[in-house]
Amino acid sequence: MEGEPLSVLCTPALVVDLDKVKRNAQRMIERCQKLGVQLRPHMKTHKTLECADIMTGGSRRCIVVSTLAEASFYADHGFDDILYAYSLPFDKVERCAALSERLDLFQVLLDHPDSLEQLRKRPLKDGRQWHVWLKLDCGNGRAGVLHSEPEALQMAEAIAKTEGVELTGVYAHCGNTYNCRGEEQIQAVAQETTSLTLQFMEKLKTAGITCKSSIGSTPSCSHPVKDMTQLSEVHPGNYVFYDVQQSMIGSCSLEDVAVRVLTRVIGHCPHRNQLLIDCGWCGLSLDGAGKLPTGYAVIEGHPNLKLLSMTQEHGRVEPISGPLDYSKYPLGSLLTLIPYHSCATAAMHPVYHVHSEGRLLGKWTPTRGW
Amino acid sequence: MEGEPLSVLCTPALVVDLDKVKRNAQRMIERCQKLGVQLRPHMKTHKTLECADIMTGGSRRCIVVSTLAEASFYADHGFDDILYAYSLPFDKVERCAALSERLDLFQVLLDHPDSLEQLRKRPLKDGRQWHVWLKLDCGNGRAGVLHSEPEALQMAEAIAKTEGVELTGVYAHCGNTYNCRGEEQIQAVAQETTSLTLQFMEKLKTAGITCKSSIGSTPSCSHPVKDMTQLSEVHPGNYVFYDVQQSMIGSCSLEDVAVRVLTRVIGHCPHRNQLLIDCGWCGLSLDGAGKLPTGYAVIEGHPNLKLLSMTQEHGRVEPISGPLDYSKYPLGSLLTLIPYHSCATAAMHPVYHVHSEGRLLGKWTPTRGW
Repeated sequence: MEGEPLSVLCTPALVVDLDKVKRNAQRMIERCQKLGVQLRPHMKTHKTLECADIMTGGSRRCIVVSTLAEASFYADHGFDDILYAYSLPFDKVERCAALSERLDLFQVLLDHPDSLEQLRKRPLKDGRQWHVWLKLDCGNGRAGVLHSEPEALQMAEAIAKTEGVELTGVYAHCGNTYNCRGEEQIQAVAQETTSLTLQFMEKLKTAGITCKSSIGSTPSCSHPVKDMTQLSEVHPGNYVFYDVQQSMIGSCSLEDVAVRVLTRVIGHCPHRNQLLIDCGWCGLSLDGAGKLPTGYAVIEGHPNLKLLSMTQEHGRVEPISGPLDYSKYPLGSLLTLIPYHSCATAAMHPVYHVHSEGRLLGKWTPTRGW
Repeated sequence: MEGEPLSVLCTPALVVDLDKVKRNAQRMIERCQKLGVQLRPHMKTHKTLECADIMTGGSRRCIVVSTLAEASFYADHGFDDILYAYSLPFDKVERCAALSERLDLFQVLLDHPDSLEQLRKRPLKDGRQWHVWLKLDCGNGRAGVLHSEPEALQMAEAIAKTEGVELTGVYAHCGNTYNCRGEEQIQAVAQETTSLTLQFMEKLKTAGITCKSSIGSTPSCSHPVKDMTQLSEVHPGNYVFYDVQQSMIGSCSLEDVAVRVLTRVIGHCPHRNQLLIDCGWCGLSLDGAGKLPTGYAVIEGHPNLKLLSMTQEHGRVEPISGPLDYSKYPLGSLLTLIPYHSCATAAMHPVYHVHSEGRLLGKWTPTRGW
């Protein structure tokens, strides 16, 4: 279908605007170069080789992943310097060891003494070291040792002094930027996460320990603060696609969003003043419920339409006000959904259709599972 | 891993209890035999060959699917008498025609004159007929012509008299049973859908038209009413797995639910009185938000635990009351989630692990896409 217009696709279909992807990726590369900080892009949003190539500028080095399936997938395709930024799962220690023994630089993350004990019990072959990042919670409230607790420094020291294990870095995810609205709020959280991380790095230095530091989230890395120049790395991910959520936070404009779900009208329901479309939660995900005046997505070019509800393969669309003019939406006509959360929407699709200015270029196939 | 306990699985993992699946399937087969009505099981919940074999008693005949990808998948593996019960998508007419020309009995569904026009414009080869079901809305409020509108009878007549097209049946989905609580309410909706469908069949008969009739939904077919004996077919699907939602509706008991998501504790957060588990929305889906006192799922054997929130690969678990006793939940320990909605949860997994009494038997691989 190369060269064909998007309208040849069977729907629902996830389409990726390659020009926007490249522009978003290039902007982040330049932003990090300007900051003088290493960009370690996160793969979790797209999980494809092609997009990873774009995000790494073709180097296939220095990435972060959220699942071990992603780590193995990228390792199998020549990627290296991979950080598996997920609190070490005990059922996957052996698979992590195999990757550590095979790659130049496979890195794991932990936030609990029991995890360190797991590594100690599984020394790597050929005198190799486990490369370990300490996960620090700087206010995000998900994984990590809370920065203010004495256990944080104790954990870092324990990692650093354990035989066969190297403290490679300190890693903080500022997912709390997702509660922000606008650049000012984003930068306040970015500043706080950076300051707390740098204060922790100072404590480490005092204890005679040096290692890398990394913070990340798409909002903070889209609007970095000056102090981030003192970090070693940043690790945003969603920025390559962006989405409606990121535009509401203020990370990007709606024009920067590189993904869409194409859907077609499959039903007219005049007795309910509704349309049916062929995109349900199997094509969009349920993420974004109650977050938008237009329902579960933005329907491009139709600001008066709302994606009210979804079942597995159906979406109910109604006007925000007034009666629907059905002649504008004949059965079979295309509508374009801008996803609320591109990570969640991409996760629902076994293949992405890539285009430039509406002409198809090919397909990207993501990896799945754990 | 055959014969191994479930604990050898890497998590998150969707596990299917084969004994429960067989029991649920057998009960529905027997229920339909007793009613004297043809069972046409829906494949949308699991989308696997193995489960389709169980649901059809090995016949590989008489199934209903929600996507054309499912139709093709089953056709490629020797299934026939397939009903693609989805308002005819105009972008897929040619693929539907190919299946109609290849299978003994491939059936499509429509609810609009423009769809009939699509079929008329694409006559099938070798004198074959399009086999068409008319979708009737008997109060569910999704797809279909509303039973009370004159257009319903007009559509049926138009289908019946169109050259190259045969009116095979009338199809109603009583998804409105999902709002029920308890057998009495379920049966009231089942009765209403059945009555309205049978009244419509009478109108058809008066107009000189005979064809099949089918209603379905897991709640209504789990508690059928006597009048359903007058239908030709029923088409439930979720009953093979069931889920927490079905147990709340009253379709089944929680013991009948055949699927679980296994997850492990990956973090302790005493400062928030929370645990982290390695199952986020990528492993469970976001379906069920706000529907359960225990959050997004039921945590088996731990009635005081609540799956409070999820991000892509993390779940936050907290007690419903009191402080967490972390010694009960060491890092690496297994928890078992009973999904709110098995269709949504199964859709997140590239593979299902099948077991009998906790011993692994093998894997089932679902088809995906459209």
